[in-house]
Amino acid sequence: MVTLFHHPLCPHSRFVRLLLGEYGIEPRLIEEKTFERRPDFLALNPAGTTPVLIEADYVVPGAEVIAEYLDETRGLGLGRHRLLPDDPIERIEVRRLYDWFARKFFQEVSDWLITEKVTKRYMTRAQGGGGPDMEVVRVARSNIRYHLRYIGYLAGRRNWLAGDRMTHADLAAAAQISCIDFLGDVPWEEDEAAKLWYARVKSRPSFRSLLNDRLPGLAPAAVYADLDF
Amino acid sequence: MVTLFHHPLCPHSRFVRLLLGEYGIEPRLIEEKTFERRPDFLALNPAGTTPVLIEADYVVPGAEVIAEYLDETRGLGLGRHRLLPDDPIERIEVRRLYDWFARKFFQEVSDWLITEKVTKRYMTRAQGGGGPDMEVVRVARSNIRYHLRYIGYLAGRRNWLAGDRMTHADLAAAAQISCIDFLGDVPWEEDEAAKLWYARVKSRPSFRSLLNDRLPGLAPAAVYADLDF
Repeated sequence: MVTLFHHPLCPHSRFVRLLLGEYGIEPRLIEEKTFERRPDFLALNPAGTTPVLIEADYVVPGAEVIAEYLDETRGLGLGRHRLLPDDPIERIEVRRLYDWFARKFFQEVSDWLITEKVTKRYMTRAQGGGGPDMEVVRVARSNIRYHLRYIGYLAGRRNWLAGDRMTHADLAAAAQISCIDFLGDVPWEEDEAAKLWYARVKSRPSFRSLLNDRLPGLAPAAVYADLDF
Repeated sequence: MVTLFHHPLCPHSRFVRLLLGEYGIEPRLIEEKTFERRPDFLALNPAGTTPVLIEADYVVPGAEVIAEYLDETRGLGLGRHRLLPDDPIERIEVRRLYDWFARKFFQEVSDWLITEKVTKRYMTRAQGGGGPDMEVVRVARSNIRYHLRYIGYLAGRRNWLAGDRMTHADLAAAAQISCIDFLGDVPWEEDEAAKLWYARVKSRPSFRSLLNDRLPGLAPAAVYADLDF
């Protein structure tokens, strides 16, 4: 039995939900509002961040730690669909792109948009809540455009972002993008190759539970759950 | 032959220099000022960050990618001194703490102190250079105190930060701390256990080249290279 502490619009949690879907694992999902800094949750992960995966007595905190753990304990079982290549040389590009999307894209786009447009709605004033800072939103919306071009550049030259097979890189990128798509802030018309790549990832069965995510008082954009966006 | 693009006070580069030292590899070091955004360097690592390791035709960008690559290609050769444990379960704690120091400590302490006190000295006004913002420096100096207590807490209960053996976790923490120690901003008197742990890491032969680092116009703090600080 696998339990996942997550938040619906935490892109790192979404990446792990996609991973678990690819491994055929249906986790028990527990929603965590990290800004509440719940002591029981901090005991599981002192860093106070989602996702945290629990399996048997093991606590596995952090998306990348979880991804490596799942690969090390179950990766070989996926055969040629393994999400981290067998070859250490091929892993370099997968991990480079994982880092690009989970860190760089997150810092330049998703963290800002999600904090301003979502998280602050659910926070009290004392917790830092309030209306979105539209200047921050504007910069993030501008930043996403070069990331989308980069996805299009990679997807136009390779079958998947890091090479011939779907890997952690695709799932990490799609997890980040999906949050922004929920908010309606992905300018899909600007890059056809990026759009085609995302349509392929979005069609995977592992993606379904993400497309059903709803937040109180916040409807997803019209294209969000549409596989023919 | 291994080449490493680095910067003397880039903590992520220092982590890789420590790793290479532990593996007995003496790299050719090339100093890179990432804020110059040199096109040839961006071609190696589009993210524009140090460190980048080159071995034969392979470009390995990013400290964590490099650490995993070195473990996968050479880890078994270290035998029981392997820096990432054989057991996937033991790896969870090592990677959790790697993440803690390389990301959380960096974001809350080192990035701010190094940017304000060092990087901005070497940047032009147009690049964002100038005098340090002392409010930022003050917050970072306050943040380091709880990180130091956390190191002391871990080191007081275990032989090394993540368990019985020295791992990536110790080298990542020491690499971050060493930059702050260069600047004289580690309040060592506040945690004896943390200080004893750092003295042990600092005494390793792999640490020597770090202690010899000098920057133009910026002398290290008096305790920096002292093994009996």
